[in-house]
Parts: sequence; structure tokens; C-alpha cells
Amino acid sequence: MIKIAVDAMGGDYAPKEQVEGAMKAIKKLDDIEITLYGDPEAIKKYLTDDTRITIEETNGVISMGEKDPIGAIRSNRDSSMARSLSSVRKGPNDAVVSSGATQALIAGAHILVGRMKSMKRTAIAPVLPTTGDKPFILLDAGGNIEIKPEFMVQQAQFASVYAEEVLGIKNPKLGLINIGTEDGKGREMDKQVGELFKQNKALNFYGNVEPKEVLSPPADILISDGFTANIVMKTIEGTAKGMGTMLKQELKKGLFGKLGLLFSAHNLKRFKKRMSPSEIGGAMIMGLRGVVIKAQGASKSEGFANAIVQASNVVRQDVINKVSSRLGEEA
Amino acid sequence: MIKIAVDAMGGDYAPKEQVEGAMKAIKKLDDIEITLYGDPEAIKKYLTDDTRITIEETNGVISMGEKDPIGAIRSNRDSSMARSLSSVRKGPNDAVVSSGATQALIAGAHILVGRMKSMKRTAIAPVLPTTGDKPFILLDAGGNIEIKPEFMVQQAQFASVYAEEVLGIKNPKLGLINIGTEDGKGREMDKQVGELFKQNKALNFYGNVEPKEVLSPPADILISDGFTANIVMKTIEGTAKGMGTMLKQELKKGLFGKLGLLFSAHNLKRFKKRMSPSEIGGAMIMGLRGVVIKAQGASKSEGFANAIVQASNVVRQDVINKVSSRLGEEA
Repeated sequence: MIKIAVDAMGGDYAPKEQVEGAMKAIKKLDDIEITLYGDPEAIKKYLTDDTRITIEETNGVISMGEKDPIGAIRSNRDSSMARSLSSVRKGPNDAVVSSGATQALIAGAHILVGRMKSMKRTAIAPVLPTTGDKPFILLDAGGNIEIKPEFMVQQAQFASVYAEEVLGIKNPKLGLINIGTEDGKGREMDKQVGELFKQNKALNFYGNVEPKEVLSPPADILISDGFTANIVMKTIEGTAKGMGTMLKQELKKGLFGKLGLLFSAHNLKRFKKRMSPSEIGGAMIMGLRGVVIKAQGASKSEGFANAIVQASNVVRQDVINKVSSRLGEEA
Repeated sequence: MIKIAVDAMGGDYAPKEQVEGAMKAIKKLDDIEITLYGDPEAIKKYLTDDTRITIEETNGVISMGEKDPIGAIRSNRDSSMARSLSSVRKGPNDAVVSSGATQALIAGAHILVGRMKSMKRTAIAPVLPTTGDKPFILLDAGGNIEIKPEFMVQQAQFASVYAEEVLGIKNPKLGLINIGTEDGKGREMDKQVGELFKQNKALNFYGNVEPKEVLSPPADILISDGFTANIVMKTIEGTAKGMGTMLKQELKKGLFGKLGLLFSAHNLKRFKKRMSPSEIGGAMIMGLRGVVIKAQGASKSEGFANAIVQASNVVRQDVINKVSSRLGEEA
């Protein structure tokens, strides 16, 4: 049995969507057990089926808009987030899934789960949709604003193992986010990173990728520093949201438009779902000694269930040990 | 009369769209005259009405994929791009519009038009659509990959004058592109720039803007270094393109879907137009001694005409002198 800890109190719609997501995940997979960390009374309101689900009582919640994430974790050791994180380091759990405040989760994961020795910097790596049938991994979506090129090589290795083992992509291609496709484009750092990627035999380096191909990328992994990749992620989000608004504004114009909208309702809903973050699951914090998945703050039950499935896949495929031995062999 | 030079040979669809665009612009405005720089024979194929339009014969074209832009400009002084640029510095023209290769145009503009004394670095500033009725200015979309904070203050001043005089926005708000809205977010450089913006009384600094609001921004000008802003522009482009593909894939599914698509055809076309770069006009290269507008390489006649109108507005409003005197007074 794979044991998964769920931070039931973190997220915009907690604990409802987290509890319902846990029940959905249990139905999808036979080999997982879930522990919900949180307020038993609040959880029980939504827990209609406790097959392979138990509750661990905790006290306190790290709020979504927490200004001092490290302080919040240190002074709320009995919170649902802190307790679920600790349960991965000390046991009994193999993985944790949380929709809680990102910076607090990262800080908490460093303090309570710990970093792998061979990874000098962790990376947040969401899996994003493309126009094709394969998603892509984006990193570092917000961990390290300024980072040394050699640490990005470690992150790239982790993402490569993840893409292969969890997403099932054979020999995944790595792309460096850049302002031009030619060699030698970008900042000094981008040039250095590109060189290191090229020299590393364990990486399948495709080269530079311009984000004008961001939803149909020629690589399976797109990497940059934590500032740039975060800007890319947020620009995708903002453009998708803005285009959705414009589409609505335009489509309802005129009588024909209204009729068309009526006929297209079902398809438009599917389109919206496809672009919605809740369909993609969570972002893995790569580089920790345990499996920590950050689900979207606004996760609904379906998306949260996907994040739990994703966490179980990372455990099942033994990703962290595989990365360790790969980085260890090369060190 | 405002005199505008058009590089008729630069662009993916040159000279057809450039010549047709020039004729459209002439119809829109009574107070402009256009000179088309290029191959007279190729131009005459499309020039069906030469009211206030003359042709200047040039030889050679800077190709769109030019690898050595500075070399290309230096060794092709009789090309349509070089000649049209020179005509702004030496006269007789007030402005130039080109869809030619961006890097060559920037290099050529520095060599043949020259930089303003009070602007240490030029900036490329496209005007982009929002979900509201006002567009926003993005800069620097690709000029200076690494830049000093104080030079960004000069660029911000130029953009503010431009927003006020050309876009008609009173006291335009300036936003710094960043990964969080709180003060002190981002890289060391972002913190420094934010401080300088705050201290500058001539700027209406809004604060940090996350690109998850990029199509409904709380500011009229979004600024970052030339690497980051270029990444933002290309991510908008890539997301819009990818979403368009997904929308098409989804909408045509099923019988109802096909019917809906039929009824919605007109509205979808308008939506596409609204998101299309050709509707927005061109990007100004801010910081030169003359008015240089870069129209999209893939410009069609309508978009190119808009870029000509835009160029005439910058001349009519005397933007460069207004910026000069503003920066001069403060120096």
C-alpha cells in the first residue's frame, strides 16, 4: 500500500474539495491509503465514504496569504500542513499533497522533509497542457529567483527522470526557455546553462525554446530560473484567462452568435476544462527527500484527486531513489 | 504635411501588404505623405492609387532571418531599410515604418538615426490588447537583455509621455512586471528599479504587476528588462496561438458543435481579429532621435496601415521633443 498524507485544511475551498478529492482518488486506485490531516469535525462534514481513509487531528491552518511563511511553519507545528509534511519524513507516509500557500509549503518542506544531498536547490515543476496529447513540465516555477547554472543541471536531471517514469515519455527532450532559438541567445546565465546541458550526456538537450511555442513545445521539459519560469507560468495563466473573457464577450454578440453559443455550449465547456489548471493535477517540489505535491490553491476535487494520483505515481516509480542514484553516480 | 518613409521591401508579405497598407493609411489621414522605399517595379504591381505616395528606388533587401544584422545594415546602405532610416535623420522624412527583421532594424536605427542623448538605452514597445477598451504598452520587448535600473527609468518616462500623447491616457500608470505584487518581490534588479520608480515624481508608479493579469492589467505600461518583457510577449503569443488551436479542435466536435461553429463563425472571426497582432499596429523603438515604428513581420495591409497612423500620431504629438525636454529638465 502506498500511504499518502493530505493537508485537508489548505486551499481556497478546503476542506471540502480536498476531502472529496481524496474519496475520488481512492476510487481510482486500489493500492493507496490516505490520511487526512485537519479538523475532524470539518472533515467529517464531507467524508461520506472512509474506505482506506483515516483522519489525523491537527490544530491550526497556515493561511493562504501568509506573509511570513517560514515563521508560520515554525510557530504552527501542529497545523495540518506541518503535520502532514512531518509524516513523510518520519513516517508513516510516502507522500504529501497540499493546496496550501506555496511559499509556506516550500519553506515547510525544506524544514520538515529536507532536501536531497545531491540537489542543491529544489524546483517547483507544474505539468501543463499542450495542443498535442502530451503535457510538458515547466520548471522552476517559483522556488529560486536567482540560481547557479550547475544547480539547474541537477534540476533538469530530476525533471528528466520524472518525465520518463511518471509521464511515460521515453528519453524526454529538455528545452531551455529563451528569447531566440539560436545558440548563444539570452543572458550570460542562459549561455552558461546551455553549455552545461549540452555537455551532460545524461540529458537529452534539445536547445533553446521560445515561449511563442509554449503550448506546442518541441521539448517535454521547459526550464529556466525561478523568476523567468514563474513569469512564463503566470503569463500563460493571464493570457488564457483574458482570452476566455474576450471569447465570451465576442461569442454572445448578435442573434446568430447567441444561437451558436447555445449549440457550442458543450464543446466550450470541454475547452474550458482543458485549459483549466484543475485538470492537470499538481506541481511537484523536486529535490526533497520525500514526495511533496503542491496542488493549485483553487483546486476542485477532480484536480486534487489528480494530484493524489500523481503523488502515488511518483512513489510507485521510486523517482527519488532513481534520481539519487543517477546524481550520485555522476558526482 | 507629415512625411512618412515606408520600407516597402521588409516583411513576410512585402511589398504587397506594405504598399496596400500605405494606400489605406493615406485614405485614413489627410495630413500625411508617404514615400515607399524599394524596387519600383515590384511596388507598382500593387500601387493602384498614388495619391500623396511617391517611390524612391533602392537596391537590396535585408532578409528576415539575417544572422548578422549590424553587418547587413553596414554593407547594404542602399537597401530599402537603410535608405528609409537615413531619410529620417537627414530628411526629408519625419518617421519610418518597417516590417523588416527586428534586430537589423534596431541596429540600423542606432547607426542611421541615432540615439537621444538623454536615453542611454532604447526600448522596443509594442502596444497590446486587453479585455477592456484600452490597450497597454509593453517594454522593453527585446532591445536590452541586461540593463541598469537607471536606464529603465528613462525608458519608463518615454513610455509615459507616449501613453499620454499618443494613446490619450491621462497620467498613465506604470507597472513593474514581477512574480508577486508585494513590495520587495523579485530579483535584486527589480527591487532597485521599483525603488527608483517610487522616488521619481514624474512617474505614476502603480507597483508590481503579476503577468497573470497581463490581458487585464491594472497599469497602462508594463515594464521589465529586455529579456523578461520579451519572454512575456512571446508567452502571450504562444498561449493565444495554442488556445486558438485547442478551441478549433474542441468546437468542431459533434453535430451540435458543427452547427454552433456555423452560427458563431462571424463572432469567432472577430475574436481572432481582436487577438491578432495585425490589429494593434506596430512597436515603437523608443529612445531614438527620430520616429521608428517596427510593424510585425507578418503584417497584413490593415495592421501596416495602423502602424503608419501610429507613426504619424507620434510625429503630430511631437513626442520625441516632449520626452527630451522632460528628461533634460531633470538631468
